[in-house]
Amino acid sequence: MAAEPEIFFEDFFDGQEISFGSVTVDRGEILDFARRYDPQSFHVDEEAAARSIYGGIIASGWHTGAMMMRLLCDGLFLRAASMGSPGLDQLRWIRPARPGDTLTLTGRVLSAKASRTKPDRGSVDISYKVHNQHGDLAMTFQAVTIFGRRFPGEKSDG
Amino acid sequence: MAAEPEIFFEDFFDGQEISFGSVTVDRGEILDFARRYDPQSFHVDEEAAARSIYGGIIASGWHTGAMMMRLLCDGLFLRAASMGSPGLDQLRWIRPARPGDTLTLTGRVLSAKASRTKPDRGSVDISYKVHNQHGDLAMTFQAVTIFGRRFPGEKSDG
Repeated sequence: MAAEPEIFFEDFFDGQEISFGSVTVDRGEILDFARRYDPQSFHVDEEAAARSIYGGIIASGWHTGAMMMRLLCDGLFLRAASMGSPGLDQLRWIRPARPGDTLTLTGRVLSAKASRTKPDRGSVDISYKVHNQHGDLAMTFQAVTIFGRRFPGEKSDG
Repeated sequence: MAAEPEIFFEDFFDGQEISFGSVTVDRGEILDFARRYDPQSFHVDEEAAARSIYGGIIASGWHTGAMMMRLLCDGLFLRAASMGSPGLDQLRWIRPARPGDTLTLTGRVLSAKASRTKPDRGSVDISYKVHNQHGDLAMTFQAVTIFGRRFPGEKSDG
């Protein structure tokens, strides 16, 4: 949670559209991440990747997810009363992220529910889409984040 | 895909149990990962984390996932004809990973299906569980991986 959060649970509503900005995928960072966490040949070996079904180096799917997490932080969570996430669903790696790609993250709030048992927080379920610079859908996922409430206990409708 | 894969689609079967070994979570690595990809205070700031609902530094959920990906690589994918993954489902961060925790990954094959359209590959859907050193369930997820076939086109039952 931010030391002085500006954004609380009450600031989310069903159907809300949120833009999180963009990041350009760096070749060196693809290799660094993959050597440590996902050293499959199509992530770390240019020649093997060129011969693979991907035709060239692609980012680890976990790396693409981590890059999106950074956009979430910079675009929202670091200014918000974020308390973490219980999980995510329906993560789909639709088009691989390649060096030089620019990925743009948007979200749509599916539901915002105050906790029935903990009056200081609520959960916000957001559907995320990642597009590349060609406008192609590259990745989608859905995740719940817990946010602290500005006015704990009021208007508990969850 | 490994240059000389030993493990192919045909080696998986419904109900198969797979062990992927363990990793111990390093405090410096938690901080390094989170500073780059998930700089929320409970991942990067010891004092703020101590005051948070987590009571101390915890790993980014994406970092925990990346550590499990490394176990998957070392335990299976680097010896296999892995062709990547279309996605994952039902990822749940049940207990946060803390510095010094040892996480152990196991999997159970839910289904192994030859591709109907591409005779050189099949998809294997695996349910994964991560336990910590106390035997507590820390994280679960379910993911499909595409594996090349040892004998393309034979016994296509998908």
